[in-house]
Amino acid sequence: MGRTLTYPKRSTNTVKRYGHRATYDIRAIHSIINTSQVLHVSFSPGPDEPFPATIPMIGQMGSFEYPSADLGEPLDCYIHGYVSARMMNIARDSEEGLPVCISAAKVDGLIMSLTPFSHSYNYRSAILHGYAKLVTDDEEKSWAMKLITDSVVPQRWDNSRTPPDKGELASTSILKVKIVTGSGKIRDGAVSDEKKDYQNEEVTNRVWTGVIPVHEVFGEPIPSPANKVKELPGYIRSYIDTSNQQNEQYAVSATNIELPKEEQH
Amino acid sequence: MGRTLTYPKRSTNTVKRYGHRATYDIRAIHSIINTSQVLHVSFSPGPDEPFPATIPMIGQMGSFEYPSADLGEPLDCYIHGYVSARMMNIARDSEEGLPVCISAAKVDGLIMSLTPFSHSYNYRSAILHGYAKLVTDDEEKSWAMKLITDSVVPQRWDNSRTPPDKGELASTSILKVKIVTGSGKIRDGAVSDEKKDYQNEEVTNRVWTGVIPVHEVFGEPIPSPANKVKELPGYIRSYIDTSNQQNEQYAVSATNIELPKEEQH
Repeated sequence: MGRTLTYPKRSTNTVKRYGHRATYDIRAIHSIINTSQVLHVSFSPGPDEPFPATIPMIGQMGSFEYPSADLGEPLDCYIHGYVSARMMNIARDSEEGLPVCISAAKVDGLIMSLTPFSHSYNYRSAILHGYAKLVTDDEEKSWAMKLITDSVVPQRWDNSRTPPDKGELASTSILKVKIVTGSGKIRDGAVSDEKKDYQNEEVTNRVWTGVIPVHEVFGEPIPSPANKVKELPGYIRSYIDTSNQQNEQYAVSATNIELPKEEQH
Repeated sequence: MGRTLTYPKRSTNTVKRYGHRATYDIRAIHSIINTSQVLHVSFSPGPDEPFPATIPMIGQMGSFEYPSADLGEPLDCYIHGYVSARMMNIARDSEEGLPVCISAAKVDGLIMSLTPFSHSYNYRSAILHGYAKLVTDDEEKSWAMKLITDSVVPQRWDNSRTPPDKGELASTSILKVKIVTGSGKIRDGAVSDEKKDYQNEEVTNRVWTGVIPVHEVFGEPIPSPANKVKELPGYIRSYIDTSNQQNEQYAVSATNIELPKEEQH
């Protein structure tokens, strides 16, 4: 772990509610972003439009200048998805780039307390604020495409038809977001009830309390009718198995409830 | 199904890319919102702040005036989560409410094509634009708390300590969003490659193609140490089992690939 860089606290990214759940640790925030399959990217479409625009995109933290930089260091967020004409125009017209807010959230469990007021989720969420610009350099674009492809399934880039040809490069838009600041919020643990409820036998005898763990699962891969590779490649199999196991383990361990011996993994 | 109301197409919600994947059908959009565990709610914090603010919240479509209205009818979005002082001030200062963008997205599968350029997700996403106001009427607030609680686990409201007392009602903030417009995007199906790749034997003999279904799973509920209800209640058990089965089935059927008989569910 070593270094413990944190994002600067500004009025816009400082967590005011349940401050003990907040994190400004760069590594924690980058990890949430990098393990999220979808990032919600918001921007203001202009002075005549009251509603922010939000677009679901795929993204990944990385450094083209220092590819060996790890998650605990300052990184850019490379995102891929449909870059609308609106978005493109604003990004081009402003010198520093388009101001965006990137948001990611994962639910790890449902907290079933005695009363709905004390219900909650176990979750991990993060936001980043930064300035987005289109990547124009072909080398950087190709590097970012590999970064993003391999974030979906590690090693997929080398195990598919690459590099992209000129037409593919030209019709792919990648945004590079220079991060200004960010914050994260992590809730784990079990139920937390108030005295008036946990001392009320009528209530405790009637209401089941506990945590329902939630996690994402990759199902059995389904080959396409045209697929000619008989066996599922090892890099896919091992990624699926490892992810499924890790995701389940996290959701269960986040409850902080000690399981009876025979139920432990 | 009967009625087929759609949201009006405005410049801000009209899907320009992959238009065939777009939907303006109210029922489809409301379904995506209602089955999402987290909604990303964005707003502009003010003229001096370039970045939109995004907050993960829990929400549900409903009508307090016409509680029997179904998903295919115009509904409000009730959301719960931390309503910051900033958010509250803006909502109060403007007559029509705080302009927000609500975004939800679900990944249903990873599309592994021959080349990264043709990779994709199966997914369902939706956005709503509307004006948010704090719910001040206690009866409506309590109704919305039940709506949202039961969206997490159906029947939980009646099976926990309710109604909320005065203090609980007072310290719960619920936003009601009057929807102006919305849109959705749904991608299903298998891989789609280009001729230059699927006619290239060197590529097709080497690259595995297919879909990796993705879905959310509820794990085995873990009772809290203080729980006194011996058996897991039926309404929780049946919700978990039904959801897990439906989520898995959707992810598999969205691939549109016919499975060999022995692998069919």
